[in-house]
Amino acid sequence: MPAKEKQSIAIKAAEPAYLPQLTLDCIVLGFHQDQLRVLLLRWKGTQEWSLPGGPIQQSESVNAAAYRILKERTGLDQIYLQQFQVFGDLVRYNLPEIKTKLQHLINPELWYNRAVSIGYYALVEYSKVNPTPDLFTDECQWWEIKEIPNLLFDHNQIVEAALQALRQQINWQPIGLNLLPEQFTMPELQRLYEAILNRPLDPRNFHRKILSLNILERFPERRKGGAFKSPYLYRFNQEKYEAVLQEGNLSFL
Amino acid sequence: MPAKEKQSIAIKAAEPAYLPQLTLDCIVLGFHQDQLRVLLLRWKGTQEWSLPGGPIQQSESVNAAAYRILKERTGLDQIYLQQFQVFGDLVRYNLPEIKTKLQHLINPELWYNRAVSIGYYALVEYSKVNPTPDLFTDECQWWEIKEIPNLLFDHNQIVEAALQALRQQINWQPIGLNLLPEQFTMPELQRLYEAILNRPLDPRNFHRKILSLNILERFPERRKGGAFKSPYLYRFNQEKYEAVLQEGNLSFL
Repeated sequence: MPAKEKQSIAIKAAEPAYLPQLTLDCIVLGFHQDQLRVLLLRWKGTQEWSLPGGPIQQSESVNAAAYRILKERTGLDQIYLQQFQVFGDLVRYNLPEIKTKLQHLINPELWYNRAVSIGYYALVEYSKVNPTPDLFTDECQWWEIKEIPNLLFDHNQIVEAALQALRQQINWQPIGLNLLPEQFTMPELQRLYEAILNRPLDPRNFHRKILSLNILERFPERRKGGAFKSPYLYRFNQEKYEAVLQEGNLSFL
Repeated sequence: MPAKEKQSIAIKAAEPAYLPQLTLDCIVLGFHQDQLRVLLLRWKGTQEWSLPGGPIQQSESVNAAAYRILKERTGLDQIYLQQFQVFGDLVRYNLPEIKTKLQHLINPELWYNRAVSIGYYALVEYSKVNPTPDLFTDECQWWEIKEIPNLLFDHNQIVEAALQALRQQINWQPIGLNLLPEQFTMPELQRLYEAILNRPLDPRNFHRKILSLNILERFPERRKGGAFKSPYLYRFNQEKYEAVLQEGNLSFL
């Protein structure tokens, strides 16, 4: 038996409870103080950060694994989760470098030569998240999208791909129900869209188009606070929101 | 070592060249005589049909595996391919039944207890495809979507999921460049959209909206044939088509 094959069997024997060579990566996005933020983990005894994720148990579905990981890292049960891309390139990152950086935590011989990762993004309400590190990490923390450091593995590319997928999605599906507090103002909703698209939008056009989706309910009174022109408060009509989410909001045809 | 673990190692040793417990399934769609069609394979010595697909070599990327499989089944190199969903449920189909049905072809002990499948759809020009069976199959044939038989595995659900993904995609991306011959009439293009959406569209609205995308070029002369009102011929402007494909054709914002 070739040495390489022996090694891979040894690894399989060491991790019989997980699907081999397959992992999940989760981009958990929150919105706070007008900034889009992502949840990152710092590996024990290092200044190296990466996305939450991990392998899939033989006894759980792929989606269940994603919900489990998100529950473990955020404390949240009901999360909006979107599978968006499989990362299956032959060489996704510099494996020898990773083995060296993390050898105090993971026996270098236990790494597969290659793994395929399934990417999920999750949209969560920032204030409800309780960031929690995992077995390999010391810290779990929100980072502003604009300030993300160099991440381990190919995780910078995965974040970028998730944002691109999200930008496509908002072309035909509403967004906000999971990212904003229950009540919000029109400018707050606009700033969420601007943060995702990474460009300014015209307020009047935004107002008109978002109302035309018919998914918002306006409260009769303006936000309290005594300012000269306090904005109205809105909330999503969950039923209509879900319906538009199903159908797509932009029926070209 | 538990018996189950021993068995899984035996399987790994038997297929060391492939990623374990991971497969691809390809929904190859063509359009012919106003009908959307899908390429199916009939397993040797049976009347059982399934989608083209297979495992991923350790030495190829996931996307390369999809292109390889499509090349093998269709003869085509340049294929529009879209990864659309991962099928990762714990129990995706009745495995004991599959083992029995295919035991004359595959040793029942060689099946993994579970596999995750990555779904791709491919849009191809019907007339250019040379349907070719694989090692396990006798026949590779086009089937009208409406007449697909009961397929092996969870492949009926996978076809349905691919069609749903395609229906979402045509809300914000153009379609047709890979499904129609180079020259086509407006009614032909409309019938393609109707076949995908599975519902009739108003011709005048369709005409107006599709022209507004600015991706079509009209030939100066009408189709020959002497009919009273021969339709104009169109083709896609590849450059503009690609641009709209990148940006999305329906900028809500």
